[in-house]
Amino acid sequence: MNISHIEHIGIAVKDLNTAIPYYENILGFKCYSIEEVTDQKVKTAFFKVGDTKIELLEPTSPESAVAKFIEKKGEGVHHIAFAVSNGVANALQEVEGKGVQLIDKAPRQGAEGLSIAFLHPKSTQGVLTELCE
Amino acid sequence: MNISHIEHIGIAVKDLNTAIPYYENILGFKCYSIEEVTDQKVKTAFFKVGDTKIELLEPTSPESAVAKFIEKKGEGVHHIAFAVSNGVANALQEVEGKGVQLIDKAPRQGAEGLSIAFLHPKSTQGVLTELCE
Repeated sequence: MNISHIEHIGIAVKDLNTAIPYYENILGFKCYSIEEVTDQKVKTAFFKVGDTKIELLEPTSPESAVAKFIEKKGEGVHHIAFAVSNGVANALQEVEGKGVQLIDKAPRQGAEGLSIAFLHPKSTQGVLTELCE
Repeated sequence: MNISHIEHIGIAVKDLNTAIPYYENILGFKCYSIEEVTDQKVKTAFFKVGDTKIELLEPTSPESAVAKFIEKKGEGVHHIAFAVSNGVANALQEVEGKGVQLIDKAPRQGAEGLSIAFLHPKSTQGVLTELCE
């Protein structure tokens, strides 16, 4: 697998209206996009920091995986997304062959039109890991 | 405050001997340094991914903050470190003036000889945040 960089860090927050001003006014980043991802039941806000993005995730339903994450662990880092350069499907096949448990057996569409898939944190030292391209 | 990029992501792991092979063999990164930080009671392992590092943190004592983190939340992302470009002390003064609670009132020395300081997750939307230079 060829990973070029960390595409984004996903951070679970209760309320974008509180979180965005923190990232803008305290850390000095600029929110360049707000997007709802209906099948994930989240509203996202994006910031660029070097070659990595920060993706804030606010649940839009108590059924959202992000809502359940916040309930269990509190607000905080939800996942790390690595940019792969020779296809998410190829990368999934490779890591599954090495014994990694997958959440997504095939790539699907995520925010910003990316092709994405998640690996299970049981196989990734506790870090919910996304591959994307 | 001028943040240029994400300097590193700190990930709490129980055992570097299990975690390093995952990052090397599954994700394809290369561990370039292992360093013990005695005052933090951790052993660290570093990988470079684009312009960001991954810093694995294995507690060397049950008294380590990282050991307590793992006990409470399990293995996973422990902190995000942002690279500031005009002094950690200046950045601390600025964010404290904006109401952010600090863990470190003054910069101290971290791994890789960096000047570092932590902000309190109560003020940072649940993300333990390090500033470094």
